Amino acid sequence: MHEGTRTEISTLGEFGLIRHLTQDIKLQNPESRYGVGDDAAVLDYPDKQVLVTTDLLMEGVHFDLVYTPLKHLGYKSAMVNFSDIYAMNGIPKQITVSLAISKRFCIEDIEDFYEGVRLACQLHHVDIVGGDTTSSVTGLAISITCIGEAGKDQIVYRNGAKDTDLICVSGDLGAAYMGLQLMEREKAVFQGESQENIQPDFAGKEYLLERFLKPEARKDIIEALRNAHIRPTSMMDISDGLSSEVLHLCSQSQTGCRIYEERIPIDYQTAVMAEEFNMNLTTCALNGGEDYELLFTVPLTDHEKISQLKEIKTIGHMTRPELGRMLVTRDGNELELKAQGWNPLHE
Amino acid sequence: MHEGTRTEISTLGEFGLIRHLTQDIKLQNPESRYGVGDDAAVLDYPDKQVLVTTDLLMEGVHFDLVYTPLKHLGYKSAMVNFSDIYAMNGIPKQITVSLAISKRFCIEDIEDFYEGVRLACQLHHVDIVGGDTTSSVTGLAISITCIGEAGKDQIVYRNGAKDTDLICVSGDLGAAYMGLQLMEREKAVFQGESQENIQPDFAGKEYLLERFLKPEARKDIIEALRNAHIRPTSMMDISDGLSSEVLHLCSQSQTGCRIYEERIPIDYQTAVMAEEFNMNLTTCALNGGEDYELLFTVPLTDHEKISQLKEIKTIGHMTRPELGRMLVTRDGNELELKAQGWNPLHE
Repeated sequence: MHEGTRTEISTLGEFGLIRHLTQDIKLQNPESRYGVGDDAAVLDYPDKQVLVTTDLLMEGVHFDLVYTPLKHLGYKSAMVNFSDIYAMNGIPKQITVSLAISKRFCIEDIEDFYEGVRLACQLHHVDIVGGDTTSSVTGLAISITCIGEAGKDQIVYRNGAKDTDLICVSGDLGAAYMGLQLMEREKAVFQGESQENIQPDFAGKEYLLERFLKPEARKDIIEALRNAHIRPTSMMDISDGLSSEVLHLCSQSQTGCRIYEERIPIDYQTAVMAEEFNMNLTTCALNGGEDYELLFTVPLTDHEKISQLKEIKTIGHMTRPELGRMLVTRDGNELELKAQGWNPLHE
Repeated sequence: MHEGTRTEISTLGEFGLIRHLTQDIKLQNPESRYGVGDDAAVLDYPDKQVLVTTDLLMEGVHFDLVYTPLKHLGYKSAMVNFSDIYAMNGIPKQITVSLAISKRFCIEDIEDFYEGVRLACQLHHVDIVGGDTTSSVTGLAISITCIGEAGKDQIVYRNGAKDTDLICVSGDLGAAYMGLQLMEREKAVFQGESQENIQPDFAGKEYLLERFLKPEARKDIIEALRNAHIRPTSMMDISDGLSSEVLHLCSQSQTGCRIYEERIPIDYQTAVMAEEFNMNLTTCALNGGEDYELLFTVPLTDHEKISQLKEIKTIGHMTRPELGRMLVTRDGNELELKAQGWNPLHE
């Protein structure tokens, strides 16, 4: 442990810490085209670019095995990495899977986990090329690295948006977050022994659970954009919440933005659930994480084309940076967008 | 958790578990040339092959912060991954570093860790292209992925040894293991409050500590072999102990072997320490892990060339599989080689 000065990590936060640690890294190899700061690293090879992304998931922080079946956890662990590759406009090709396992787990548990990983891999035609298991003194740790490909000049970074671009999202937002809330409520009911024994009732809420437990990486959106000859100017996937991700695109592209509250796509079940929980629906959709939808910008000239694509909604537009990063509410007010997204280091 | 049958992981062990989970994986993408089962995965690209290796290191299993400074830990975490790439006859080019950090750690700790990673990267001209920090409820978890390159047909697998090949190792063996023993002894002294307060005395044992705390990946050996136009027929790095690794080469290459006890390279300090600890020196050299030396085979016709290279020693030869995998002792007896290497899942 460090002797002398001790600065708590919370003073910088997760993004701040990474920036602090990596800000003066100079890339030495000509093949290392892009390093820290996007959904994946980009390596340059003749004719192709190779994308690399990696995730480290810890029990008790990133997942709760009380309500997450191991098969779903395997599926989701793979999917969130595929999502990072799609978010660069690439195609995932290989993954490696490392697990640190405590004595609580048996072989059948790990088989279940792998079954989920393999199912996700089959759906996305990804090969498992490396695997490692080791022991852990506490809980489960999962490390997945995904390698993808893209043709030269196909890759979309976070920093390419122009101040007149349209801002688009796929699917709908906030559902995974509501699924998590629902799970947490049932867990509390289940664990509160003094209360009546209430059977979990998920009827009519299946979509929320599925969105949380079994997210799907949006390969279909990447394909739809290619088929429509639309090349996003910037893109990332929504893992920490829409607000947080929009702010990333703005700061990396040096733009401002206007997001229109009424245009944020929200599923009916999400809306019902927010009311039941007495939560502000827009706040859920802006700050709920783990939807793994794609957020991207396209040139204004693609307006016509993009409006014809299913499951893609234009929610606002970029602006010059001095106009700020704003949410335009239903009643026409402008509020500054703030990232209150899920951040494990702030928890 | 799994309901129904519960099979303890110890019944398969680490290697058995990975084999069990990955044995029927079929690679789907033409670029995925080689998957699970070697030091690194191999991806095929025009003109080049890309190597990928990954490690997940857990506090309390893979390292003990009582005697491992974080800077050394960072250095070692990077080095062991470079070592895996060299063990494929490749050159490491990029790494990604993910950390899960508990509240015990402060920013200065993580800076120390990164300083070690960066020092290792500078020495081996490797770029840090990805980084991720997240929180952990207990302890530190480190996940490092390293990407390397090799020209077409340059890669050396574990399965290419022929039954007349010579078996060679670089450097010397058992020193890292003795360094660990020394550290464990000092830790016990330090923690045993009832005992006298003995100051740690590492004089004359610096080499052992350095081998354990600051291993060096053997890029120099890879370069020396290239310069001498020697292409190993099989190769791996020694992380779990010589016995264990020789058996891997034999089983993947379907050969037997003869290892000569008297030819195993051992440093003077290792020998002194083994005597002080009253341990069998050959057992330490055969089974002590974490030396990160290279173990490889070369054709018999390279005998002359290999004998002229510094820091490489021929310790035996491959044989036909029916002749068994044997250690020939100093007094001429033949004992069956057994892997008693360090295996976290057996601990």
